[in-house]
Amino acid sequence: MAVLPSTPRLVTDPQQLAVDLLDFIRSKIPLARAMDLRLHHYSRDSLALAAPLAPNVNDKGCAFGGSLTSLMTLAGWALVELQLQERGEDCDVFVGESTVRYLEPVWGDFKAQAQLADDADWDTFFDTLGARGKARIEVLCTVPGDACRAAATLQARFVAKRRA
Amino acid sequence: MAVLPSTPRLVTDPQQLAVDLLDFIRSKIPLARAMDLRLHHYSRDSLALAAPLAPNVNDKGCAFGGSLTSLMTLAGWALVELQLQERGEDCDVFVGESTVRYLEPVWGDFKAQAQLADDADWDTFFDTLGARGKARIEVLCTVPGDACRAAATLQARFVAKRRA
Repeated sequence: MAVLPSTPRLVTDPQQLAVDLLDFIRSKIPLARAMDLRLHHYSRDSLALAAPLAPNVNDKGCAFGGSLTSLMTLAGWALVELQLQERGEDCDVFVGESTVRYLEPVWGDFKAQAQLADDADWDTFFDTLGARGKARIEVLCTVPGDACRAAATLQARFVAKRRA
Repeated sequence: MAVLPSTPRLVTDPQQLAVDLLDFIRSKIPLARAMDLRLHHYSRDSLALAAPLAPNVNDKGCAFGGSLTSLMTLAGWALVELQLQERGEDCDVFVGESTVRYLEPVWGDFKAQAQLADDADWDTFFDTLGARGKARIEVLCTVPGDACRAAATLQARFVAKRRA
């Protein structure tokens, strides 16, 4: 039987990068696995992760604050990581200072959506990374609540540093 | 064989309250169980929780930011909860706004210690709770790092509300 030539994998396909990154997160971070988080969507400007309530519930029957913060932080981290990977940048990405607001309880499965903060832009971030090998960027993450309001928000500074 | 009268349990013993609260947290919050958190110590002014690195590790081999934040938030929450319980107050305690700083990576088992923030005091908190049935208090939580420096800090506002 003839062996068909394998189709070369387009590793710069953004959706595939996102799927691969989520597999990586789940394989390397036991708590992400315990939270049972999943990729919800990824586009150039935003990334959302989803998690079911059951493994993330607290004593009151709503989502545990630690799970909300973890999901928002990972969504922000993944957004920055993917923007770097799409440009072929090999960096370590760390979260720095974060401000979290818990605005209302979350009574069901939830998601966390990450996008750039109002005063941040990718061009400045990549220019600085190119010049210094290190750059920081502010990301805003939101857990949508009822009636189009946020149930929780996290604004965080992420630092990317080129690997030696 | 004679049955000895059972010793009445001193439910206001602070250490027993802390042990019971940790049992409650582990039984009601699956993520706390996944993190394998434990009571490290509790005194009138501070409470510390401990967690092993293995279930809380990230892709870089150090502690996952979500685990650090979760442990600090739970330490702060437990400190407020225990102060209320010691005074016989039956309240729901919620975390509000938090500011987290990740200062250095944590490469081993870790703990999170909670104490009142500099400008907070219990007397004002309990006076307000007595007058209004609701009060807020600022708590500072720290994950100790190497050389007496903090590896991470969290300052959070907790709100206590008397149950109907």
